[in-house]
Amino acid sequence: MTELLTFPVASATLLEPRLPPSQPPSASPSRPFVTLTFATSLDSSLSLAPGVRTRLSGPESKAMTHYLRSRHAAILIGVSTLLADSPALNCRIAGAASQPRPIIVDPHLRWTPSSSDKVLELARLGHGLAPFILTGVAEQSLPAASVALLEQHGGKYIPLAATSSGHGGRMRFDWHIVFDSLLREGLLSVMVEGGGQIINSLLHPSFHALVDSVIVTIAPTWLGEGGVVVSPARTHDSAGIPIPAARLSDVSWHPFGEDVVLCGKLHL
Amino acid sequence: MTELLTFPVASATLLEPRLPPSQPPSASPSRPFVTLTFATSLDSSLSLAPGVRTRLSGPESKAMTHYLRSRHAAILIGVSTLLADSPALNCRIAGAASQPRPIIVDPHLRWTPSSSDKVLELARLGHGLAPFILTGVAEQSLPAASVALLEQHGGKYIPLAATSSGHGGRMRFDWHIVFDSLLREGLLSVMVEGGGQIINSLLHPSFHALVDSVIVTIAPTWLGEGGVVVSPARTHDSAGIPIPAARLSDVSWHPFGEDVVLCGKLHL
Repeated sequence: MTELLTFPVASATLLEPRLPPSQPPSASPSRPFVTLTFATSLDSSLSLAPGVRTRLSGPESKAMTHYLRSRHAAILIGVSTLLADSPALNCRIAGAASQPRPIIVDPHLRWTPSSSDKVLELARLGHGLAPFILTGVAEQSLPAASVALLEQHGGKYIPLAATSSGHGGRMRFDWHIVFDSLLREGLLSVMVEGGGQIINSLLHPSFHALVDSVIVTIAPTWLGEGGVVVSPARTHDSAGIPIPAARLSDVSWHPFGEDVVLCGKLHL
Repeated sequence: MTELLTFPVASATLLEPRLPPSQPPSASPSRPFVTLTFATSLDSSLSLAPGVRTRLSGPESKAMTHYLRSRHAAILIGVSTLLADSPALNCRIAGAASQPRPIIVDPHLRWTPSSSDKVLELARLGHGLAPFILTGVAEQSLPAASVALLEQHGGKYIPLAATSSGHGGRMRFDWHIVFDSLLREGLLSVMVEGGGQIINSLLHPSFHALVDSVIVTIAPTWLGEGGVVVSPARTHDSAGIPIPAARLSDVSWHPFGEDVVLCGKLHL
């Protein structure tokens, strides 16, 4: 049986202004409420190396992550994180009313789901939901066995239009298209959790207007060179001078155990 | 006339346990009290690019830096920072009892002092002290004009034994030798301020025992790829597995305006 976590009411109250509305909105929203959240070292690394799970933050931060999951309809990660960590992608907060829907960004279908994957195991046990996979692979080319396995668990593939980027024709999604697809599924809030590529692309200035809330946990450690770094692509002004890629407004800092939690907004 | 800064008494009280003793120690110390302090972005950059002065932290943090300078006998920077910024290297806190001694780490004598340099100008005006330059150049090879100019202002060269490192025979100092030289000058406390190479080398595990206090200001901005990054060299355990390079203990976080100030210790 999975251990349940508790998150102090006082901490939840501090975070409340940063979270999606508890009540469904009266009017139809044009996009989901998007929260970007992750934990880094002081040198902005998510982990010591790609695929190396690195315990960064303390137990208070872990409880916070699961509390945040309880307050979102969906949680989104990139396929690299799924393949590296085989994460549970459920909510283990005590008394959670519902489970978030895992969304996997997997343009090239690098993940082949298996019934022994933790996320599917938890779905079978009723401790989580099966994932929706956002892919650039067309409907008619989807692998039939994987389609069936996902559907048995309540998950599915969602084919999306992808753009090819420079590196060897690697496909990427425009974040507008990603969030539109979630809205069509009735998912009104999403917590974007990682990994590095996902976070860095969402921190690009062209997507700041899509992000409602940023919650970053920072642990008082330096992982050293060679980690998986959060640092968005270099941004220049119209004269070609480098400028900061992103700045938070409406900032608050909350010490949580040995870590600090930073809350802010990317757009004004 | 230079604008004077004030630092709130309440903030000074918070920082007091992190600072060198206000009274001279009764016994002779074996090394100076060393405080490592700097300001970074969320992606651990000191500046947008080498030589590009980047305003990261707010006015509260600037006042803090000058307050910290008022509490140390010396402030230490690498020559790259001197050449890039032409910093004042004085203390502009209102009511400061004395000025800190600027220490420049310049193994190859890349800096040729000129009477128009800000640090020497301020020394002539009595608003700061002339620097001591730590160099790997031998006494008899020091440039006579620079020696004379420094001495007129109350500064000097201090030749030190240097080790050659891999990159094209570039000389470096062992931090033990650096701090020993300051102790011999009667400087019982030093605030190490930057830049990136200086900070990263002091964060290496072999020097953690020399550092008494770490004070890092973090601004809620991402500068983006290509900045001057604080991230120590990769560290491995005895089995060759990557491990975190440094972790702070005795941690406290203090929001200062939009920034946060992190205090901690590198050794237990």
